[in-house]
Amino acid sequence: MSTLPITDRTRLTRRPQRQVTDRAALHALLDAALVAHVALVREGTAVVLPLACARRGDELLLHGSTGGGLLRAAAAGATLTATVTLLDGVVYARSVSDSSMNYRSAMVVGTARVLAGAEALQGLRALSEHLVPGRWAEVREPTAEELAATAVLALPLAEASVKVRAGDPSSAPDDGEDRAVWAGVLPLTACAGEPVPAADVPAGVAVPASVWERAASL
Amino acid sequence: MSTLPITDRTRLTRRPQRQVTDRAALHALLDAALVAHVALVREGTAVVLPLACARRGDELLLHGSTGGGLLRAAAAGATLTATVTLLDGVVYARSVSDSSMNYRSAMVVGTARVLAGAEALQGLRALSEHLVPGRWAEVREPTAEELAATAVLALPLAEASVKVRAGDPSSAPDDGEDRAVWAGVLPLTACAGEPVPAADVPAGVAVPASVWERAASL
Repeated sequence: MSTLPITDRTRLTRRPQRQVTDRAALHALLDAALVAHVALVREGTAVVLPLACARRGDELLLHGSTGGGLLRAAAAGATLTATVTLLDGVVYARSVSDSSMNYRSAMVVGTARVLAGAEALQGLRALSEHLVPGRWAEVREPTAEELAATAVLALPLAEASVKVRAGDPSSAPDDGEDRAVWAGVLPLTACAGEPVPAADVPAGVAVPASVWERAASL
Repeated sequence: MSTLPITDRTRLTRRPQRQVTDRAALHALLDAALVAHVALVREGTAVVLPLACARRGDELLLHGSTGGGLLRAAAAGATLTATVTLLDGVVYARSVSDSSMNYRSAMVVGTARVLAGAEALQGLRALSEHLVPGRWAEVREPTAEELAATAVLALPLAEASVKVRAGDPSSAPDDGEDRAVWAGVLPLTACAGEPVPAADVPAGVAVPASVWERAASL
């Protein structure tokens, strides 16, 4: 299995025992995410925005608008930092300080390519199949005008850190905790509710299988 | 109702119609979040990390470790950018390009105070009551040593942007879409699973009410 190199930008300074360098773990975490928090530096300050994302091979695709400042800066070669976090649980320890959260988080740093032409359409399709699997086949494809207004960025997964906290609460055995208190983990997941039809859906039009599959695969 | 000022750092460059300046909307969104993606600039590159968060009045409390690089830099006066995003739904439009997500997102920019002494304990308690309501009363409070290893940052909510997308899919009425295709929103929420006891919980110890209440209030 391939391993992520640790660089000065991806070395964990805090709790290095939580650093995971298995590239498969990075891929699995990105494949479960819908949104990345993407940052760049503008006039000395970090701007952090949520962008729809999808992994394709060794790249993280990011979806935006050609009119947005972040996308313009990325196209001009700005360094991007994309962080993806999945909250897996609330950790109930027997002391306040040992309380924690179970999570998987990845930070990817690099310069993104802007996909153009046929590659942009392929990128958009990959994003669509990740975010709303099966929908591409159900609806109208993008027009040339819509494609021109859409930016798909491809951020290489060459430089990335992965941090994971999982399992039981930690605690020292002899620091005054009440051992009779319940401790454990409350698992967290994303859940889908009942699909809500748009106001203009004609009577008798059923919710397509793609929507139910999206709900089931969260 | 109080209004958020729009500054050069918080003005939306993209889809300004989604900008919300009602401070109550900012508070409601932060009150529903467990994690903020917090960025600062290190050697010209943004570092973005997930930190547990809680709003207290007009400040966003952030929880970290005094040993962490981000916390040390924040204590030294670095500008922080904290973005909180809640994904509310997947928007199924009748074209690929109108597909979207419903979300509420806030970006807060500023310099944080590091809480110390009694104020640090109060801040930690506010974080605890937000993240694991009721747990503070059930378990041992932090020791002086634990407090010294914990940093609570307070980021003022003075400069913040809020962006919201809600409701039905958008579409132009006459751009070649198949109007007979279902369109609508698949709502997304955070859900809790069944609490998992730690391996060392004695037989007969029940899951406390605080855990069930946390699960119910997600």
